[in-house]
Amino acid sequence: MTRENHRENVAGRANVEDTPELLKYYDELEGHHTGALWTVANKIEPWEPKSQSQPVLWRYRDLREKVLRSVELVTPEKAGRRVIYFNNPGRSDVAAAVGWIYAGLQVMHPGEKATAHRHSASAIRFIMEGSGAYTVVDGHKMTLGRNDFVLTPNGTWHEHAVSDDGTPCIWQDGLDIPFVNAMEANFFEVHPDLSEPVAFPVDDMTKTWGNAGLTPGGGDWSKGYSPMFKYEWDRTYEALNHFSEASDPSPFDGHLMEYVNPTTNGPVMKTLGASMQRLAPGFATKAHRHTGSYLYQCCKGSGHSIINGQRFDWSERDIFCVPSWAWHEHANASDSEDACLFCLNDLPVIRALGLYREEALGDNNGHQPEG
Amino acid sequence: MTRENHRENVAGRANVEDTPELLKYYDELEGHHTGALWTVANKIEPWEPKSQSQPVLWRYRDLREKVLRSVELVTPEKAGRRVIYFNNPGRSDVAAAVGWIYAGLQVMHPGEKATAHRHSASAIRFIMEGSGAYTVVDGHKMTLGRNDFVLTPNGTWHEHAVSDDGTPCIWQDGLDIPFVNAMEANFFEVHPDLSEPVAFPVDDMTKTWGNAGLTPGGGDWSKGYSPMFKYEWDRTYEALNHFSEASDPSPFDGHLMEYVNPTTNGPVMKTLGASMQRLAPGFATKAHRHTGSYLYQCCKGSGHSIINGQRFDWSERDIFCVPSWAWHEHANASDSEDACLFCLNDLPVIRALGLYREEALGDNNGHQPEG
Amino acid sequence: MTRENHRENVAGRANVEDTPELLKYYDELEGHHTGALWTVANKIEPWEPKSQSQPVLWRYRDLREKVLRSVELVTPEKAGRRVIYFNNPGRSDVAAAVGWIYAGLQVMHPGEKATAHRHSASAIRFIMEGSGAYTVVDGHKMTLGRNDFVLTPNGTWHEHAVSDDGTPCIWQDGLDIPFVNAMEANFFEVHPDLSEPVAFPVDDMTKTWGNAGLTPGGGDWSKGYSPMFKYEWDRTYEALNHFSEASDPSPFDGHLMEYVNPTTNGPVMKTLGASMQRLAPGFATKAHRHTGSYLYQCCKGSGHSIINGQRFDWSERDIFCVPSWAWHEHANASDSEDACLFCLNDLPVIRALGLYREEALGDNNGHQPEG
Amino acid sequence: MTRENHRENVAGRANVEDTPELLKYYDELEGHHTGALWTVANKIEPWEPKSQSQPVLWRYRDLREKVLRSVELVTPEKAGRRVIYFNNPGRSDVAAAVGWIYAGLQVMHPGEKATAHRHSASAIRFIMEGSGAYTVVDGHKMTLGRNDFVLTPNGTWHEHAVSDDGTPCIWQDGLDIPFVNAMEANFFEVHPDLSEPVAFPVDDMTKTWGNAGLTPGGGDWSKGYSPMFKYEWDRTYEALNHFSEASDPSPFDGHLMEYVNPTTNGPVMKTLGASMQRLAPGFATKAHRHTGSYLYQCCKGSGHSIINGQRFDWSERDIFCVPSWAWHEHANASDSEDACLFCLNDLPVIRALGLYREEALGDNNGHQPEG
Ligand SMILES: [Fe+2]
Ligand SMILES: [Fe+2]
Ligand SMILES: [Fe+2]
Ligand SMILES: [Fe+2]
Ligand SMILES: [Fe+2]
Ligand SMILES: [Fe+2]
Ligand SMILES: [Fe+2]
Ligand SMILES: [Fe+2]
Repeated sequence: MTRENHRENVAGRANVEDTPELLKYYDELEGHHTGALWTVANKIEPWEPKSQSQPVLWRYRDLREKVLRSVELVTPEKAGRRVIYFNNPGRSDVAAAVGWIYAGLQVMHPGEKATAHRHSASAIRFIMEGSGAYTVVDGHKMTLGRNDFVLTPNGTWHEHAVSDDGTPCIWQDGLDIPFVNAMEANFFEVHPDLSEPVAFPVDDMTKTWGNAGLTPGGGDWSKGYSPMFKYEWDRTYEALNHFSEASDPSPFDGHLMEYVNPTTNGPVMKTLGASMQRLAPGFATKAHRHTGSYLYQCCKGSGHSIINGQRFDWSERDIFCVPSWAWHEHANASDSEDACLFCLNDLPVIRALGLYREEALGDNNGHQPEG
Repeated sequence: MTRENHRENVAGRANVEDTPELLKYYDELEGHHTGALWTVANKIEPWEPKSQSQPVLWRYRDLREKVLRSVELVTPEKAGRRVIYFNNPGRSDVAAAVGWIYAGLQVMHPGEKATAHRHSASAIRFIMEGSGAYTVVDGHKMTLGRNDFVLTPNGTWHEHAVSDDGTPCIWQDGLDIPFVNAMEANFFEVHPDLSEPVAFPVDDMTKTWGNAGLTPGGGDWSKGYSPMFKYEWDRTYEALNHFSEASDPSPFDGHLMEYVNPTTNGPVMKTLGASMQRLAPGFATKAHRHTGSYLYQCCKGSGHSIINGQRFDWSERDIFCVPSWAWHEHANASDSEDACLFCLNDLPVIRALGLYREEALGDNNGHQPEG
Repeated sequence: MTRENHRENVAGRANVEDTPELLKYYDELEGHHTGALWTVANKIEPWEPKSQSQPVLWRYRDLREKVLRSVELVTPEKAGRRVIYFNNPGRSDVAAAVGWIYAGLQVMHPGEKATAHRHSASAIRFIMEGSGAYTVVDGHKMTLGRNDFVLTPNGTWHEHAVSDDGTPCIWQDGLDIPFVNAMEANFFEVHPDLSEPVAFPVDDMTKTWGNAGLTPGGGDWSKGYSPMFKYEWDRTYEALNHFSEASDPSPFDGHLMEYVNPTTNGPVMKTLGASMQRLAPGFATKAHRHTGSYLYQCCKGSGHSIINGQRFDWSERDIFCVPSWAWHEHANASDSEDACLFCLNDLPVIRALGLYREEALGDNNGHQPEG
Repeated sequence: MTRENHRENVAGRANVEDTPELLKYYDELEGHHTGALWTVANKIEPWEPKSQSQPVLWRYRDLREKVLRSVELVTPEKAGRRVIYFNNPGRSDVAAAVGWIYAGLQVMHPGEKATAHRHSASAIRFIMEGSGAYTVVDGHKMTLGRNDFVLTPNGTWHEHAVSDDGTPCIWQDGLDIPFVNAMEANFFEVHPDLSEPVAFPVDDMTKTWGNAGLTPGGGDWSKGYSPMFKYEWDRTYEALNHFSEASDPSPFDGHLMEYVNPTTNGPVMKTLGASMQRLAPGFATKAHRHTGSYLYQCCKGSGHSIINGQRFDWSERDIFCVPSWAWHEHANASDSEDACLFCLNDLPVIRALGLYREEALGDNNGHQPEG
């Protein structure tokens, strides 16, 4: 066996040669569940982050057929949920799509219903196709349509279903499962009745809390997540358009709006953030990089992104990821139609813990050379 | 001259008889700019608040004609603004409508424009009639329509006007002038150019910040007031209807929503709050009382309020006040149409300083006996 | 009767001549509880604050004798409390020492005890002389010594006393009574038992919360006031000295520290703030002015202050006030001893409501010409 | 190769048998960087956390000799820092002592100085023995003595040293290196001058910010970490004693105080928390468990802890860890002397992200059966 020894010949960095005496010393240390810092210091204190995740694009035309086939292959009873999850080549040990974020495509047929349960992991759904889908979260029922975004926060009972008169539905799930597991804080519980009663008027939370600049009198909300459980596409797209009329685009994101908890203007949940951005016809961003892990879904139009020098072309429903500290830039393929990208990320964690850092690409007029 | 001496024959309260020796002592104290607490303690520590303000209703059909006449009587140049202010009989020393709140009706003709200025007092406008009104606040221009609610916060440059192609406009002004004067903190400045340039797209702030559950990416706002300067009536009324569908009415307010700063979910400004409430057809509230001063405007429908036992009937555009700690209850007069009340108040002050207290009327099934 | 009409010949200000027609119009308006804004606008929108309070110095050698005499003149049972209150010539209508702050000197003899009670007004005590004084606040007993500062916040039961083995005690009371009355939010209650049981170890709150950089595990505190009810002089003076060693003095205040709620680093109570400042031997500040009302007590050394051009010399236990927006500067009289000023103020209100403004004196090297 | 397939025969959990058809389907999914959720769902959604860390006790009498020997074996120039780090058997892949926390023992001889540098990882030091140690953080120099606790927050330049007239010093380092690496957000920079100038009076930050209930006038601090960089032992021990006099011990912790940022009463840094607790003579806690990772150092007295049924006896300077969700209870070995435990943990992360959960042991009068 050879011992690790990460040497660098730079002032202030460890650079200790192995000697027989030292190797013996390392053996002794190991016997006491210790090690010599200088053998690993350069490894554990890197000059800058090097993500384990790889940039990947998952093409919907491939995966749609796959996830639909699961309906023939497994029953909801046996499978729990029929989901194809995104397995980043660098993160398959924790079943993550990127960083510590889990994501998958779920399919459900009319009349089906998942067992009600709850967990410490927080989840979102983003509706991709089909009609009649609904979710019940802590007794609040929400009807779901195309491009709607819905929360099932940490600790809430939830149940997903498609009504009898609906059509087969596919949506993107996103969870912080890998992160909450890494923090060794994940708990799971099946609802004692396997199902969950609807206790409020349909869509009551969005009707109560989803009104710009108006809050319910006497209403208070102090939970760590948004009381607005559903964010509807129509209002979201309208907001993007209003915002686009009122201000110049960001050079790195076009017009990007973050989904927020309306009672704090902060992230929808403590561990997962989401945004929707609009690239105007013909618009291409410049490149930058920042910490945090990002999973995009194109939900309108088409275009491409260059991530660490690699080009990924995307069209509606394609999904791709940008790992931490990876250079990235996006471009709309059309000169007449806008393109919209939904993004799920761990920014709330990165920001809350003071770990956000950002850098613009200075060279080449802000654009990466394509590989 | 007789000295004040507020005696009460209750354990723990002052009850000292005047004697020649004491009266001489009081004279000595006065010579040193002091007094004996026990002569005034019962006065300055009352058992409960007794407001100096009286409940008053200002009828629009009376005042409309009056304010329109001001146009003939004074020029904008000489008058500054043509405004009829509400002078509560108990508060005429500070020109307040109720408590420490100033309010008035302002009229402006097409093509007129008020001199741009700023002050430490915070202001709101609520549009009552006419078309073409607009306001510029720190370079942000807002077009204003019926029942729109607009802010000109503490320290912002502002300019009100009606466009050439508009009609005569009347709106309600509301300010914390008496309060800021009482705090001895009011500053006033005329704009050096007497006018203020428009520096942003029209209505940009509402387009940027007025989107439920979505915040502009990279946008931060840390001023002590809302970045959403205008709250439009259509969205407000829609919000009230959504809220009404989703929840039961408050027994004291029906469906009441507070106008809020979307970045904090707190009040629109630090010293003035506002709400809009909807009384369903046939709905009558029960009576309660609380601290704080309240000025209502009926902006839809008709009904009546009972305030400290006195009945006030109101219809569209009538304005009335509820003083601090006064019993009050409201009723919609119609069985088919809803009634909406706009309310301007000092709740942000009362709440921020820990002075809010509330009590429900227990007797008589929650209703006051009418006097 | 002549009507008010405050005219100014300045663009943007009201300047309307009285005419018979207008005077008649004003009468009509009055009949509807309204007035014409242009007649009062210049009055209620001043260019800058003009305080109603006058700068006053209350000399302890005069008042000490006066307050001690009250012991012979009135019984605690009849007087409630034997207090000489400071009556600012400009604020005697509300019994205030300055602005909206009430203050007085209270005397209590060994074995005496005030009736337990509570009120919406918030109070502080600052111990001036004597031994054996104690206060019970919501069951927490605190022993009090010279220059100790103690809180009896809004809504807490409290009882002041001097133990049998003590000596006659004099302290300064400070309350927001005038302000809470002005807000029409003052409630008063005598304790049903007239006295209040001690329910915790003596000085438990200061022992629990008064530890720099350490907070009780599992302890939470969400009330609107500090859980540290007593601030002891020894630790305060030590803090001032540490702070003086570690940083340069402020040109306007020397080394000033604010008493704070240790759970928020904000003011001790929502409506009253307090600070202690140290002027090094020979130190004299420059002049500035700001909004807010301030009542100083010299609790160590001697010196003078110049307030709006008027000089006030003070030594230990003298009390003086600085009204809102008054120019002021302080100087230590000694070249060998430091001087300390305790200050009670309404800064928490001024700051919470966004009304703080400050200006340094530029002329004459920052010093006022003495009148 | 066999595929993972985590089956459970429980309603609401995945339980799908492998079939040739499914295995072929899994192969296809893998080709698209995806997988079938039902094969891993039960693994990634466990019923409760199962920590990868093992409970370990590191005995100082073993390690002291080892760390001192490093002085003979490597030079500071080559090694950077002479540190023996704690290598938890379950976490050696990330060089963590427990969970995502790195810790080690560092030795430094008089006249030695480490190269100044900074990184995104946050660090603490806890002084174990020796005199003359000091740290410079962003120009603020702090002298360090036994049991003093000092911060070098995320992004601050820092330099550790022992003065020429000191003695060999040993301290415990603690960092969030594994966590910040996991978040892919770690940056490292060597100071351009390799050393850092002292720019303020010695210990200025503790003198300025370390005063209970008093904050520097005009001082504001909005960084994500405490401005009080050093917490001295004398004040800490005094605080523990005051707290012990004023309140009953927690059944699970005795008298525990958290080190806090005095401007927020929150954790000293965003990613690392610390506490000091006192077990009175003869005191033994009951068992409980909670999420989060904890590294204890006994810094006074002796005793034992039972962790998941395993007993660990500790005396002064021994270090041991409690993994997430492990049952634990502590006991003081002495009937006459108190015992103090310093604890470094990731509670700020766990709490900020809503992942804290706690459970008391109900059985056996709250005590674990020893294995
Ligand atoms: Fe779930
Ligand atoms: Fe980006
Ligand atoms: Fe104005
Ligand atoms: Fe009310
Ligand atoms: Fe009192
Ligand atoms: Fe001042
Ligand atoms: Fe370091
Ligand atoms: Fe514990």
